Order: sequence, then C-alpha cells, then structure tokens
Amino acid sequence: MPVSILDCAHFYYFYKMKQGILTVLAIGLAYSSPAQDSLMFRKISNEIMLHSTCYENLRVLCKTVGHRISGSPAAAKAVTWGEKAMKAAGAEKVWLQAADVPYWYRGKESLYLKTGKEYKKVDALSLGNSEGTCGKLLEAPIIMVHNFDEFKALPESAVKGKIVFFNYRFRQDFIFTFEGYGDAVKYRGGSPSAAAAKGAVGVIIRSMSTGTDDFPHTGGTHYVDSIKKIPAMALGNTTSDMLEQACQKGKVMAKLTSECHMMPDAVHSYNVIGEIKGTETPERIITIGGHLDSWDVGEGAHDDGAGCVQSIEVIRAFKAMGLKPKCTIRAVLFMNEENGQKGGQAYADSAMAHHENHVIAIETDAGGFTPRGIGLVMSQAQKDKITSYKNLFLPYGVYDFSREEGGSDIDPIGKKLKVPLAGLVPDSQRYFDLHHTNNDVFERVNHRELNLGAVVMAQFIYLVSEQGLD
Amino acid sequence: MPVSILDCAHFYYFYKMKQGILTVLAIGLAYSSPAQDSLMFRKISNEIMLHSTCYENLRVLCKTVGHRISGSPAAAKAVTWGEKAMKAAGAEKVWLQAADVPYWYRGKESLYLKTGKEYKKVDALSLGNSEGTCGKLLEAPIIMVHNFDEFKALPESAVKGKIVFFNYRFRQDFIFTFEGYGDAVKYRGGSPSAAAAKGAVGVIIRSMSTGTDDFPHTGGTHYVDSIKKIPAMALGNTTSDMLEQACQKGKVMAKLTSECHMMPDAVHSYNVIGEIKGTETPERIITIGGHLDSWDVGEGAHDDGAGCVQSIEVIRAFKAMGLKPKCTIRAVLFMNEENGQKGGQAYADSAMAHHENHVIAIETDAGGFTPRGIGLVMSQAQKDKITSYKNLFLPYGVYDFSREEGGSDIDPIGKKLKVPLAGLVPDSQRYFDLHHTNNDVFERVNHRELNLGAVVMAQFIYLVSEQGLD
Repeated sequence: MPVSILDCAHFYYFYKMKQGILTVLAIGLAYSSPAQDSLMFRKISNEIMLHSTCYENLRVLCKTVGHRISGSPAAAKAVTWGEKAMKAAGAEKVWLQAADVPYWYRGKESLYLKTGKEYKKVDALSLGNSEGTCGKLLEAPIIMVHNFDEFKALPESAVKGKIVFFNYRFRQDFIFTFEGYGDAVKYRGGSPSAAAAKGAVGVIIRSMSTGTDDFPHTGGTHYVDSIKKIPAMALGNTTSDMLEQACQKGKVMAKLTSECHMMPDAVHSYNVIGEIKGTETPERIITIGGHLDSWDVGEGAHDDGAGCVQSIEVIRAFKAMGLKPKCTIRAVLFMNEENGQKGGQAYADSAMAHHENHVIAIETDAGGFTPRGIGLVMSQAQKDKITSYKNLFLPYGVYDFSREEGGSDIDPIGKKLKVPLAGLVPDSQRYFDLHHTNNDVFERVNHRELNLGAVVMAQFIYLVSEQGLD
Repeated sequence: MPVSILDCAHFYYFYKMKQGILTVLAIGLAYSSPAQDSLMFRKISNEIMLHSTCYENLRVLCKTVGHRISGSPAAAKAVTWGEKAMKAAGAEKVWLQAADVPYWYRGKESLYLKTGKEYKKVDALSLGNSEGTCGKLLEAPIIMVHNFDEFKALPESAVKGKIVFFNYRFRQDFIFTFEGYGDAVKYRGGSPSAAAAKGAVGVIIRSMSTGTDDFPHTGGTHYVDSIKKIPAMALGNTTSDMLEQACQKGKVMAKLTSECHMMPDAVHSYNVIGEIKGTETPERIITIGGHLDSWDVGEGAHDDGAGCVQSIEVIRAFKAMGLKPKCTIRAVLFMNEENGQKGGQAYADSAMAHHENHVIAIETDAGGFTPRGIGLVMSQAQKDKITSYKNLFLPYGVYDFSREEGGSDIDPIGKKLKVPLAGLVPDSQRYFDLHHTNNDVFERVNHRELNLGAVVMAQFIYLVSEQGLD
C-alpha cells in the first residue's frame, strides 16, 4: 500500500521510543514541520537499515563482475548488471545513455629490483593511462628523490637514462585523508612527464597510500603531449621503505617490463539511469549517482561499487515505502569516472540538449564508510538553507556541511548548467588504505556503514525534493 | 628538548598551512586562549598520527599474548606486557595494583543440532560464567521463543526437559549500536535462569550480533543463586537463521557437551598503572584507562586491547612532546572488566584508602574505531564547561558530547568517590560484528582509527589538566 510522504503518524510511538523527542525539540526554530520530517527521516532509516539491498547488490557486482575498467568486457557486463539491479529496485523507467570511452589496457607487467647481488621481483602496478615498454625489458639505475623540489635541483646529467623513484610519503597528519591525497597525488599525475623532460627512461612512485601494508595503488597519470611518454609504476609502502633504504645505501638497479597502453579507439559504453517520476513538479530533476567503472584491480568495492548500490537503494527505498516525491529522482551509474569522465560529460550534454531542469546533482564516491557529512557546492543561501536542517541529520551521525565536495561525474553538469552539487562525505580514515588496490574488495565493506550512507542520501533527497533549495 | 605547553609558536605556520585559521576564529568566544589550545591540539595530533606506538603495541599484545581472560596464564602474561609497554612509553612511575579475580574456564565444548535425519555440528560458544555439562552429553529437544514475552506465555510443561532457543534478533534499526546491544543483552544475561526456573535443561541464544556472518558471540551471563545453573550457548546469526527455520518446520534436537565452569578460588592478579607526575597540582589525578583482560576468544583487539594501547599512548605522547601537565596523569590497564570488575573496584578502594584527589576518570572501551564523541557523566555545569570547547575537537571528527557514557572500570571510582567520568565514543557501526568473537583480532583494527582515538583522549586530558572542570 502506498504511503504518502506526510502519512506517518503511526511511526510516532516507534520513533519516540527509540530516539527520544530531543531531535523534534532541537529543530523547532529551523523548520516549518520538523516533527514530520524527523519522523520521515526515521522511517527512511528503518526501511534501509532493515531491508536494504545495498550489501547483496554490492556482493553480486564485486563477485560476478569484479573490477571493470572503462571499455573492457567487464564494464559492459557491469552495465547489464546495473540495468537489472535498477529494474529490480523498482525504478519506473530505466535506460542506457551512450558515452564513448577510452580503454586503457594493462596486460602483463613486472618489476625487479637489484639492491644487493641479485634481482628480486616486487609487487608493482603500472599507473593508469601510462604507456608500458611494449613488453620489452627496460633496465636502468634508480635515482631517488623525495619531492619535486629535490627533483628540480638535480642536473639533467643525474637524471638522464635513469628511472626516477619519487618517494613522496602520504602525509598521515591530515585528519581528513582526502587532504593528504590532494597533497600527494601530483606525484602520480605529474612525475612521468617531469622526469621524461630531463631524460629519465622510467618512473617509480611511492603509492598514494595511508596503508601499513604493501599494496601498490594504481590511478590515473597524465602525460604532457610534447614530452616522451615513459613507463610509470607504483609501489606499496613496505617495498617503498625497502627501496628508500637501499637507495640511501648505494646503487639500485631496476628491470621493468610492461604491456600497458591506451587502445587506439574509443569504445561504445553507457551510463545506466533509473528514474522515479515526480508527482508535483516532474520536470524538476534530482540526480543521485556513483560511478560504475573502476580501475582494473581489486573489485572496485568502495570505489565506487558502494556509490552505485547506494544510488540504486535510494530508488528502492522510495518505491518500497510508497513515497511519492514532488521532484523526479534519477539514480545514475556513471561510466568512465576514473580516466575520462565521459559518462559525466554525456549526462551534462544530454541535460543541456533536452533543456532539463536540474534541482541538484549529488554524488557518492568517497567510499562505503559511515557518513559524517554532506559536501555542498552551491550558493551561500542554498548552503544556509540546507544547514538549517542539520539537526535532522545529527541522529544519523551527519554533522559536517562545511566541505565543498561534489564529485567528478557531476562536475560537468555543475559547470555547464550551473546545477548545485552535493557529495556524501563518509569517514575518510580507511579509504586510502584501499583506494585503487587489489584490496578494494567486497570484504572490506561493512554492511551497516554502507547502508547508513544510503540512508543519508535518501533523507537528503527527500528533504530537497520536499523543500527545494531556494 | 622539553617543550612547555604554551611554547608552540613555531607550530603556527605548520598548523595554518594545513587546517586554515577557521578553528581559531570559530572558538573565539568560548575560551580564554583558543589559538594556543587549538595549536596544542594540532601538535598532539601530529605527534600521535606520525609517531604513535598504538598499532605496534596492539600487534604485540594480540599476537604474542592473544586472548587473556581474567585469572588465566595469558592474563598474567598480559600484565607483564603492560608493565613493559608502560615503561617503554616513558611513564615516570609504573606499578602493579593487586586485584583478586575470578577465573572462568571454558574447556572443550560442542553443539550438534538434528534438524533432519542426522546430527550436524555447529559453531557455538558457551556464555561466559556459565556452567557446562561437566563434559557429559546433554541431549534434549529444542523449543524456540523470540523474546521473554513469548517465553512467559509458555506453560511449564512446554519448557520442562527442553533446551530453550531464545531467538531475539539484534535490532539493526538503532543507529548507535550500543542502544541495540542494551536492548538485546538481557537475553544473554537473563535467559538461563529464566529458562531453568521453568524446568529447562539448557539454553541457546542468538548472539548479540550485528554481523551478517556466523561468528558466535560469548559474553557474561548471570545466574540467579536460588535457581539451577543450566548450560547456555550462543550461536552466530547464520546458524540462528537455520535453526529458526528448522524450528518453524518441526522438531529439532540438540546434543550439547561442555566443560566450562567457574574455578573455585580467586586468582591473584593486577591492574597495571603508569604515571606522569603533575607539575603544578600533582595531587590532582586524571585517570585514563582501558581493560587488559578479554574474553577467551579472538585476540581482544577492539575489546579492549585498543583502549589499553591508547591509554599507554597518552603517556608516550606527553613524554615525547615534553609536555608537563599541571595534574598527574595516570594510565590504568584494568583487570577483570569482563566478568567481575575487580580491577576497577581495587582502583577505587585504593583511591579511597589513600584519600586521593581525582579530577576525572576516563575510559576507552568501545572499540578502536574513529572517534565521534566523548561521553560525560558529571554535573551539568561541568558538562557545559567541556562542551564550550567543542569547536576545538571538531577538526578531529569529535562533535557528540551528549551521551552519558563512562566505562565499567571507572564506575566504582565514580560511585564511591563521586569522581566525574568520561568515555571515548567511537563510531559504533562495526563493534557488534566483532565483540566477544573469534573475529576480534588485530587485523580488524585500522591503524589510523586507533591512533585518532588516542589523539582525542590526549587532547581531552590536556584540556582538563590545563583548565580543570570547575
């Protein structure tokens, strides 16, 4: 039986029993019908915490599709999975939106280091988008630097013919680890061309990793067009520590082989979109999305299977509860976030071409961890309106509305159509232990944390749909 | 070189670069020297996030001592470990405080269920403190109830000679999982005597578990003295689901054997205490503690190895930074939290006997997860004073000062000496997946989350030491 959004008196006792009436009292001044919204927040939470399909959907995506880099057969399989999952969630309309994507292919790769008498194989991953050695052996001495300043101070003669080891350590003193990532990631993106410009023949980097382990982290690098594209690999922290010590002691040699390359042609691919039509203002669209592609390691569980299943769960919860939102709600599984954002661009282009009216676009792409906040990229007045509801979110652990975080996939629609953006901000402590590694698998995701993220997204969407942003 | 608490001007640039000056501005009205405290909070955080020994200490405790139930040889080994770790942290004085503790011994145990034609062995754990079958076979039919109301409605004839399966499900709709635990734990504590009073010969319970897995959770049960002590075992969620379905379909038999029993004599044991003497008011004592004992499964990693190593880390960080606190700071590794609280009682008794002056006692015993708040058990005026500093804690993810949570070990000193209490409130989502199981091992603890808990405890202690509570 459908339940209207405001028909929730029968939840009052249930709610009171569990949460006390503090929330209801606390929001008195901020909001016109705080008790009803607080009850609906509770109802959404109960629906998802008790009946969520997030965890099972993620298991199927991770274990039957696995990792799924853009353009790969696995990515195509993920599209089929997404379409099916979206229909199973009860979306009223499900469609595929075309996006041509690049296809970077890893192939075989190996790295051997000689720190003493013999070469030993180490765990390493070529950086995404990088060019390999065409399967040929590249042997060269290693020169270590700790940062770009040290590198710039080196004469060309010291670099020429060498493999440069950029040994920049992810700073553990940042509490919000995305700040540490922002600080360190320039070595992944910029070191190959910087090194090649001085005649280096290859690059090795210490991974962008908070981990105490040895998982190497891949992720996209970017070549400057006019500079030779040299191979680039990442090491985990333990091997980086070993290499650091070896470089301090004496000469270290490397033997590197890799087949990775960007395929010459783009591949036809798709965003997967599911929709619930709004009842009062169906032309007004709220987008919630994650990205369906991943790097070609692990299972893309946190990055970003979690965001996909949470977006699907919003649709499922609204339909299961019989909620009839004023605005149209669209869940979008974007393709090609990791190395091209072609899905996000296609979504924005289509919205422009069809003169769509977008209220807000929301992304969840920071891991399936317990939520702490919602990032807001919008006018101050719109931020103020949202933060006036903050006491509604507090019982769900969400208190931080201070970050300007949206998401890569919704950036194009934000820029091209001036759509306000928002992004789920989960706890960030574990993300960069796992990000872009073979360890980003289903088993690293906690069912309750994953569900809570979906709860907060559904509550936020309910609120924006009912109250608007302006 | 020692650094005085306020000598931190040289950290200003470092701090400004990383966190902006927002915090400094935000706390302007609440506090007399907000910039200095904010800088000291950052300095404490940097020291611990960059140089913490928490994770390595926890590894050694978990991997060389392992689980360590009160009275056991492993608990004695843990005391030796604790004494050594406290000295290595730089505590100025380290001593053992005697506490005689009970020793519950598990021995061999097994549970077989016959839901069809044949008996099959299932994973099960006797409840802590329970009496077993003296190794003899107990075979009986199972009768299932979902809660005490259903059980009360049963006639004695339906219960007599049976094993009662209390199939109460941990409620996943509570966001703060300790509320779900509080709701469910009565079935662990109360069901054996309730069942025995109606003539049952044994009890099986669904574990107090949020898990999607099959780990059974042990934990203390309590017999009513005048009622026969019958065996009691816990099942994981998957086996409980299977048993639930089987009971709905027809007759289920159980064969149970166990050797567990409470040893007749108490065992001499100890709290481990390390201290830094206060410089201005050394007679005023601040206690920070966790508990050294665990249940006899897993490695007691989150419960409460985490709290132990965090308490030791507070000492290490203060000493390493050359901080000279006004008050004396004591880190206490309490013995016997799990089944007797004899360590906590001994600590309170000693404090009374020596007319000690305790400013506050703080416990960390809710898992080594990322912190979200500090529970406060004290006067409203004292709570108000602490919460006036809340913006200092916000950059470290700590925003919730609303919970009345201290800890079992500090309860006695709170009650007997009217000492204000506080407790670290970490994120609760994963705790009851792991609590009292074979899965509560070192590998389930994240290094950054563990360190952050120590950061917040050290910051809180610094603040109380400098500013007092009144």
